[in-house]
Amino acid sequence: MNQTIKKNLLRDLEAIRSTSPLVHNITNYVVMNNTANALLAIGASPVMAHSIEEVEQMASIASSLVLNIGTLSPNWVEAMILAAESAHNKGIPVIFDPVGAGATDYRNDVCARILRKCKPSIIRGNGSEIISLCRSIQTKGVDSTANSTDALEAAKELALKAEAIVVISGEIDYITDGQTVETNPYGATIMTKVTGMGCTATAILGAFAAVNPSPIEAALSAMTLMGVAGQVAACYSKGSGSMQINFLDELYNFNETTISRIDEKQ
Amino acid sequence: MNQTIKKNLLRDLEAIRSTSPLVHNITNYVVMNNTANALLAIGASPVMAHSIEEVEQMASIASSLVLNIGTLSPNWVEAMILAAESAHNKGIPVIFDPVGAGATDYRNDVCARILRKCKPSIIRGNGSEIISLCRSIQTKGVDSTANSTDALEAAKELALKAEAIVVISGEIDYITDGQTVETNPYGATIMTKVTGMGCTATAILGAFAAVNPSPIEAALSAMTLMGVAGQVAACYSKGSGSMQINFLDELYNFNETTISRIDEKQ
Amino acid sequence: MNQTIKKNLLRDLEAIRSTSPLVHNITNYVVMNNTANALLAIGASPVMAHSIEEVEQMASIASSLVLNIGTLSPNWVEAMILAAESAHNKGIPVIFDPVGAGATDYRNDVCARILRKCKPSIIRGNGSEIISLCRSIQTKGVDSTANSTDALEAAKELALKAEAIVVISGEIDYITDGQTVETNPYGATIMTKVTGMGCTATAILGAFAAVNPSPIEAALSAMTLMGVAGQVAACYSKGSGSMQINFLDELYNFNETTISRIDEKQ
Repeated sequence: MNQTIKKNLLRDLEAIRSTSPLVHNITNYVVMNNTANALLAIGASPVMAHSIEEVEQMASIASSLVLNIGTLSPNWVEAMILAAESAHNKGIPVIFDPVGAGATDYRNDVCARILRKCKPSIIRGNGSEIISLCRSIQTKGVDSTANSTDALEAAKELALKAEAIVVISGEIDYITDGQTVETNPYGATIMTKVTGMGCTATAILGAFAAVNPSPIEAALSAMTLMGVAGQVAACYSKGSGSMQINFLDELYNFNETTISRIDEKQ
Repeated sequence: MNQTIKKNLLRDLEAIRSTSPLVHNITNYVVMNNTANALLAIGASPVMAHSIEEVEQMASIASSLVLNIGTLSPNWVEAMILAAESAHNKGIPVIFDPVGAGATDYRNDVCARILRKCKPSIIRGNGSEIISLCRSIQTKGVDSTANSTDALEAAKELALKAEAIVVISGEIDYITDGQTVETNPYGATIMTKVTGMGCTATAILGAFAAVNPSPIEAALSAMTLMGVAGQVAACYSKGSGSMQINFLDELYNFNETTISRIDEKQ
Repeated sequence: MNQTIKKNLLRDLEAIRSTSPLVHNITNYVVMNNTANALLAIGASPVMAHSIEEVEQMASIASSLVLNIGTLSPNWVEAMILAAESAHNKGIPVIFDPVGAGATDYRNDVCARILRKCKPSIIRGNGSEIISLCRSIQTKGVDSTANSTDALEAAKELALKAEAIVVISGEIDYITDGQTVETNPYGATIMTKVTGMGCTATAILGAFAAVNPSPIEAALSAMTLMGVAGQVAACYSKGSGSMQINFLDELYNFNETTISRIDEKQ
């Protein structure tokens, strides 16, 4: 692994462990448990709260805000917008996971609204979600040529339009501000067979953004951590069940030795 | 294991793995994570979405629709009915899990309404849920003699009335269209100590119904898969915690060898 | 371990296993799965139901009612109050977990309302939650001197005001009726890195309160069970992922031998 990436990752992880940043998640029902466990495993402090009666105050005491529309409904979307306003007033980073963008018109409308109102500093999705998201903020409606644009081009375009760092999860993860592109080559295919791995990545982005003011550096550290922990866990996992558990164990124990296990194999 | 059952199960599982059918779940909060992981482990593609703003469109792009009333509330029930209408318009099978049927009047009313409006092609529950369900669609009110009817008789009656395949989970699973009865003798008692195993069975029924147009054949394959994976996992599980994980691993790795482990012991 | 504590714990656990009390949980989305699995592992029968259309009837057939405000919203709070009224009418114990008390004004208002309306017989939280809760029921507004009160003093005061047993989870757990104080010294630090361990403790308190009419004795048995199972599981857990699973296995297999593993080390 590149020495700068390694140094930054270990420094940011140490900062998370020593300061336990409160990460406020307004996320989906499927992954709340995974997300909370992953945040605890790396030393962060998760809180899940979605009621419009309290999201502004909760976001105001948090160190970052993670918005995830996996199981969205109108009340939750209103809560996301209120929480994001509060986060911006306090200068707290907002991370956005457009789960299922492109699947329904409602989801697309909500994505466009969240991009406009919540101004995330980091957006993470898979290739097709990022392509959908890029289209959804075009003022002239759906760009029919977008089908031929690959996800990375869409990510760059989205990054510039949304003034955010865009992360595409995939076999290789891409992280871009619209100009430069960073990559994370680590990971394992079996990670796609554990529900919520993408959502976990987004939550971990929230923890790193809480301790590193550079969103692109935070994103590179977070995605590298996910990839290395996943790749190491996959080596000794018997199936997708044990993978979920071993992944948390690797996050919990993550240190220089974890990285060296990957480097030795290359 | 009977060679036809084995051949059909492996053929259907291969179809799930190669086509990754999208299974739309409107299910309960307790089991969403298990359900999603079990569907991923067998190669299906789960989506959880419950908002009335999008369920019709989501169901229309799915290959099957799974309705589960474990933690029901009025909005969710409306979403189930809208999604089921959409599923019927697209010719997609609807699977129904009447969790807790019989426990409250509200649950019974909802069950009767779902049976009438959502026309499931497969219904799965435990014995007492099936007995309750059978009663709830009797036009003359609760049948006081139903107490003496065993669950299998109720299942047959329900299958005829609802024009659905009815599956009773238990020590032996029964699968009936009201006339013939198929059985799955595989499984393990410890499966009852892991929450959501029944709900997982229902979701897996959804995946099999997506690839096999015969609901009784799909149900037999799905319940046999559950039973065999559970029985094999139980052999080496230390308790109900590891059982949950080992079960997912067995689903993930399921093949002819898994079945042979059961056959050897008999 | 003290012989009386040991004898009572094993007797209460045996009662749970032989009678499978129905524990009705109105709890948060993050921990529903853990909570259900922990209750199943000790032999209880969990049910999660939150709709105002059915909570009164569900509570009326349960053996105890557990209220947890982790991911609260107005509808859920109304359901808690309705369910508690029903529980009181049936003489069923109510257990309350004030998750995040003190974090927002809304949470504090809800806590005060639940204390007044739901009259829990056992309240469990961490130190800062108990201090917040104690303040929230003072008639003269927030007591500015409360900052200097340690959690145990707040717990005693709360116990007397609320006429409840108060449990503080921490490195050592304290259990008080306002006069006497019992302690549980067992446990492991890694338990704080698994989400929902506190919520699981509260649910287990519900199971023990269902079989033991003395809330202080039930609380001491429940917290001792949690602590011993956690301490034993921690000895062979590689990280926070495997800890979650091993803890459930230890609950599932808990018996005199589990306790002797702790005693041997002292």
